Amino acid sequence: MGKYTVGVDFGTMSGRAVLVAVDTGEELASSVFEYPHAVMDETLPDGAPLGVDWALQHPRDYLDVFANAIPAALKESGVSPSDVIGVGIDFTACTVLPVKSDGTPLCFLPEYASNPHAYVKLWKHHAAQDKANRLNEAAADEPWLGRYGGKISSEWLFPKLWQVLDESPEIYEAMDYFIEAADWVVWQLTGVHTRNSCTAGYKAIWHKRDGYPPKEFFAKLDPRLENAVLNKLGVPVTPLGRRAGGITPEMAALTGLIAGTAVAIANVDAHVCVPAVGILGPGKMLAIMGTSTCHILLGESEHIVPGMCGVVEDGVYPGFFGYEAGQSCVGDHFAWFVRNCVPAAYEQVACDVGKDIHAYLTELAERLAPGESGLVALDWWNGNRSVLVDVDLTGCIIGLTLATKPEEIYRALIEATAYGTRKIIETFRANGVAVDEFYASGGIAWKNAMMMQIYADVLQIPIRIAGSAQGPALGSAIFAAVAAGEEAGGYADVFAAAKAMGSLRDTVYAPNPEAAAVYDRLYAEYDLLHDYFGRGANGAMKRLKEIKKSAGR
Amino acid sequence: MGKYTVGVDFGTMSGRAVLVAVDTGEELASSVFEYPHAVMDETLPDGAPLGVDWALQHPRDYLDVFANAIPAALKESGVSPSDVIGVGIDFTACTVLPVKSDGTPLCFLPEYASNPHAYVKLWKHHAAQDKANRLNEAAADEPWLGRYGGKISSEWLFPKLWQVLDESPEIYEAMDYFIEAADWVVWQLTGVHTRNSCTAGYKAIWHKRDGYPPKEFFAKLDPRLENAVLNKLGVPVTPLGRRAGGITPEMAALTGLIAGTAVAIANVDAHVCVPAVGILGPGKMLAIMGTSTCHILLGESEHIVPGMCGVVEDGVYPGFFGYEAGQSCVGDHFAWFVRNCVPAAYEQVACDVGKDIHAYLTELAERLAPGESGLVALDWWNGNRSVLVDVDLTGCIIGLTLATKPEEIYRALIEATAYGTRKIIETFRANGVAVDEFYASGGIAWKNAMMMQIYADVLQIPIRIAGSAQGPALGSAIFAAVAAGEEAGGYADVFAAAKAMGSLRDTVYAPNPEAAAVYDRLYAEYDLLHDYFGRGANGAMKRLKEIKKSAGR
Repeated sequence: MGKYTVGVDFGTMSGRAVLVAVDTGEELASSVFEYPHAVMDETLPDGAPLGVDWALQHPRDYLDVFANAIPAALKESGVSPSDVIGVGIDFTACTVLPVKSDGTPLCFLPEYASNPHAYVKLWKHHAAQDKANRLNEAAADEPWLGRYGGKISSEWLFPKLWQVLDESPEIYEAMDYFIEAADWVVWQLTGVHTRNSCTAGYKAIWHKRDGYPPKEFFAKLDPRLENAVLNKLGVPVTPLGRRAGGITPEMAALTGLIAGTAVAIANVDAHVCVPAVGILGPGKMLAIMGTSTCHILLGESEHIVPGMCGVVEDGVYPGFFGYEAGQSCVGDHFAWFVRNCVPAAYEQVACDVGKDIHAYLTELAERLAPGESGLVALDWWNGNRSVLVDVDLTGCIIGLTLATKPEEIYRALIEATAYGTRKIIETFRANGVAVDEFYASGGIAWKNAMMMQIYADVLQIPIRIAGSAQGPALGSAIFAAVAAGEEAGGYADVFAAAKAMGSLRDTVYAPNPEAAAVYDRLYAEYDLLHDYFGRGANGAMKRLKEIKKSAGR
Repeated sequence: MGKYTVGVDFGTMSGRAVLVAVDTGEELASSVFEYPHAVMDETLPDGAPLGVDWALQHPRDYLDVFANAIPAALKESGVSPSDVIGVGIDFTACTVLPVKSDGTPLCFLPEYASNPHAYVKLWKHHAAQDKANRLNEAAADEPWLGRYGGKISSEWLFPKLWQVLDESPEIYEAMDYFIEAADWVVWQLTGVHTRNSCTAGYKAIWHKRDGYPPKEFFAKLDPRLENAVLNKLGVPVTPLGRRAGGITPEMAALTGLIAGTAVAIANVDAHVCVPAVGILGPGKMLAIMGTSTCHILLGESEHIVPGMCGVVEDGVYPGFFGYEAGQSCVGDHFAWFVRNCVPAAYEQVACDVGKDIHAYLTELAERLAPGESGLVALDWWNGNRSVLVDVDLTGCIIGLTLATKPEEIYRALIEATAYGTRKIIETFRANGVAVDEFYASGGIAWKNAMMMQIYADVLQIPIRIAGSAQGPALGSAIFAAVAAGEEAGGYADVFAAAKAMGSLRDTVYAPNPEAAAVYDRLYAEYDLLHDYFGRGANGAMKRLKEIKKSAGR
C-alpha cells in the first residue's frame, strides 16, 4: 500500500539512486553507478590533450546512471514500479553543456566529438578564470553583484559560456542551448526542457524579479554575447518543488519505472539537502560538510550579506530567500594534514591498535582541553570562500612551540574550520539574516563526534545531525514526492514533505558553557587574524603568492 | 720540537680534551668523558626529589674530566707532557656553585650533601625565574640594564645566588664564594682563585669601569644581599688571555701534565670559539650553531643595542667590546619538525635510499627555488632571545596551502632562522655596531650546505665555515698558548695565536644575487610579522599562552 519515490544524486564521480518510502522517508534501497568517463581533466575520449584547469564530463554517463542505478535500486527494494510515484534529481553545479534544440549534446554529434568545448564543463572546470576576472571588473557597479557576495565565480555559467564563445565560436554558434546538466537530465527523463530556479539563481545570475542581467551588460563584455541569454538560455525559470513532466516511454523502458511518473524540477546537491533534515523555515543553517562545507539558510527577505555565495528567491524552497555560503577547506584540510604532517610513529601506533589514522588523531585530540594547544589557525589552506571571497588567501598557524604535538595541530585545524563557520554566522546576523539553529550533514558530521562538539562549543548553538547519510538523494526523493502531488500519494508542498520524510539523528551536541567561554577568547584571536590578513592590513599572503608564482622553477 | 696545548671544553653532558699543535692549530688527539651524574633535574644523588625547573650538576664530574680525558688525549697523541706548554678551559655558563674559602664545594661536605643548594646550578637551572623577574623590575632605571638588552636572565648569577639565600640561608651563610664552575676548575688546576672577565661581564653584571652594581641596588632586592658582591664574589676580575697560574703537583699527577704548566683564565664555550676561526677584530660575526645559535661580535666601543644578550669590555678579546646575541631555536627547530611533522612515506623513502631523514628532507628542499614554497615562518618555537628578548613569543607560519609539502615547511623553518639572524645583524648595524663578515661554527654549519647557502643569500654576506668541529676546545687551546707566552713557545697575545691556530674551511658560501633579491622580499614579510606579533601590535601569542596555562588539564 506504501508509495515510494526515487531520488537520484549526480556527484562528481558517480550517480546514486535511492528508493524512499513517501510516508516516513525510510530509505529502502540504494545503488551507485560510477561514471565510465569519470572526470576528464587530461584528455578527451579520443586522447586529445586538454588545457590546464580543464575538467570535463561525458553526458552519456548520466544516462547510464538512470539505466543502471534506478533498476538496481528498484530490484533491491522489491517495490513495484507502479508504487513509485515520482523521481527527483540533484546535480553538482555549475555543470553545463551545449546542446541542440532537441536536447542532443554537441559531443554526441560526430562532427563535434573531438572539440573539447562540445562536452560538459564540470563545476570544477577552472579554465574560465580570466573571463570571470573580466566579468567581475565590468560588473563592479552592477546592482546584482551584491547578491553574490561581490564576486562571480569562474565556476559559474557565464564565464564558462564566454570561454566557449572565445575559444570555439563554432561550438557557440552550433549550440541552441547552454544548459545545466541538472536540467538536461530532467529533460532527458521527461522530454520537457525546464530551467530550475536554484542553478539559474546561484550560477546564472538570475533573479526572480529582475531576471538575468540586461543584454547591455553582456554586450559590454563582448558584442557577440549581447543576446546570450535570449539565444542560449532562452527558457523561463521554474521554481523548485514543481513537476517538470512525466517519464517518457523510452526512459520508462530504460529505468524500469512507469511512463508518466512525475519528475521534479532539477535541484543542486547541497541545496536539496535542506528538506532531508526537516528544515521548514528561516533561521536554521544547514552545513553540508565534506571536503569543503556548503551552508544553506532560509530567510524571509533579501539582504545583501558581504561575502556570501549567493541569495536567491525560490533558490531552496519556494517562497523563501535561500542564502548560500561556504568554506573551501574542511575535509580537505584534515586530509592534507594526515598526508603531509603525521609522523611515522603515529601511523605505527594507529596501525598497532587497529585504528584509522583520523580516528587515532581524534582520540588524542579529544583529550585536549579547549585552548590547551595554545594554537590558532586560519582555515585558508584553499583560500576563503566566505566571507572574504578570496582564493589568494592562504593558511596560517600561530602559537607553535617545541612542545607542540601533531594532535594539537590536528585539533587546531578542526577548530579553525569552526571559527570560520562562526565568522560566517556572525556576518549573516550582522546583516539582518537570523541564524538560530545549526544542522550538520555529510560524512564528517556522522563520523566525528569531537568535531561536532567543538562546533557546538565554538558556535554556541546546539548541533543537530542529519538522519540520512544520503542527504542529497533523500532530498531529491522528497522533491519527487512534492512533484507527484498529494493526490498521487505525495505531498502538497515541500514543507509537508520535509516534515514527514526529513530526519535527524537522536544525538544533539549541546554547547558546554565552560568550553564556550574559552572558545570565545580563542575566536577573538581568530577574528583579529582574519581581518588582519584577510582585509588588507597585511597583504602578505597575496605577496607570497606573487613571489611564489615568479619563483617556480 | 713542536709545542702543544690542551683545550678542555666542559659541555652540558660531558667534557672534551683536545690536544693541539701550537704552530698550526692542528688537532692531534681528542677524548671525551661523560659526566657520571649527567644533569640532575629530578633527584639528588641521595634520591631526594628536586623541584620543577631545577638542573644541577656534581663538581666531582669536572675533576673526573681532567683525570680521564687529558691523559687519554695525551696518550692518543703520543706527545710528551714536557712539550705541552699550556692548558685552557671553557665551560657552559652561567654554571655556578657555592664553595668554601679553600675552594671546597659545599656539596663535598657531608653536612651539606643532602641540600640541593650545595650543588652546581647548571646554566639551564630555571627555578630562579621569580628572582629574575623581581630583579628586572627593580633594575628598570639602572644604567647597566641596557648593556643586557634590557633584561637579566633567570639563568644568570644573581638570580641564582638570591635563590640560594631565599630558600637555603644556611648554605648562603656557609659559602665563602659563589663561583662560576669555569673559574672553579681553573682554581682546582692551579690553586689560584680567579674570576674571568667573560662570565663576570655576561653573567654577573660586571663592567670594566663601573664594576658590579652598587650594594644599594642589592639591598633594595633583599637587605641580606647588600654585601653579596663583597662577601660572595670578592675576587677581582681578570681579563681573558692572561695566565691564571700553573698546574699544581696534585693535578699534574692526576692529568699526566707537568706541574707548573700554564693555565689560562677560564672562558665560556661560545665566546672562546672566536679565535678558533681566526677572527682578529671588529665587524666579523661568529654564529655558533647548534640546538640554538649564539652570535659573538667584537666592537671598538660600547653601544647599547636593544635586545642583545650583552656587551662586555674584554668579554671576548682583551681590548675589545664583545657583543653577544642569540636565537633560542635553531637545531631544535628542525629536530622538532622531524619528530612531529614528517610523514611515514618520507621516512620510508629516506630509509630505502639509505639517507638520514634530515639529509633526505634537505635534498628535497634544495630543489626548491627561494620563494617557491610561498611560506614565511617566525622562528619563535622557543621564544625570542634577540632582539625581542621574550620567552612568551611562539612560532608562526603563513602561506600554507593544500599543495604545501613537508620539505617546503622544512625549508621555511630554515629560512626563518636565517631571517632571525638578519634581524639581529640589522639591529646591531642600526645601533652603531658594524657587521661585515659572517662565520659559522658548530655541527649544522659543517653538515648543511643548503642552510649555509640560504644564510648567505638572506644575509647578503659571504659565509665562512669554522675549520674545526671542536671550536670551543680549539679556542681554549689557543688561549692556553697565550697563557704560556711567547718565551715558552706560545704567543704574545690572542691575536697572534688566533692568526696562527684558528682555521676556516676552504668553502665560502657566496650570496647569489638572484636569490638575495627574492629573499629581500621574503625578509620584508618576516620583518613585518616580527614587529606585528613581537612588539605588541597583536599580543595574540601571549594571550594564547595565558589561555593555555589556564586550560591545561
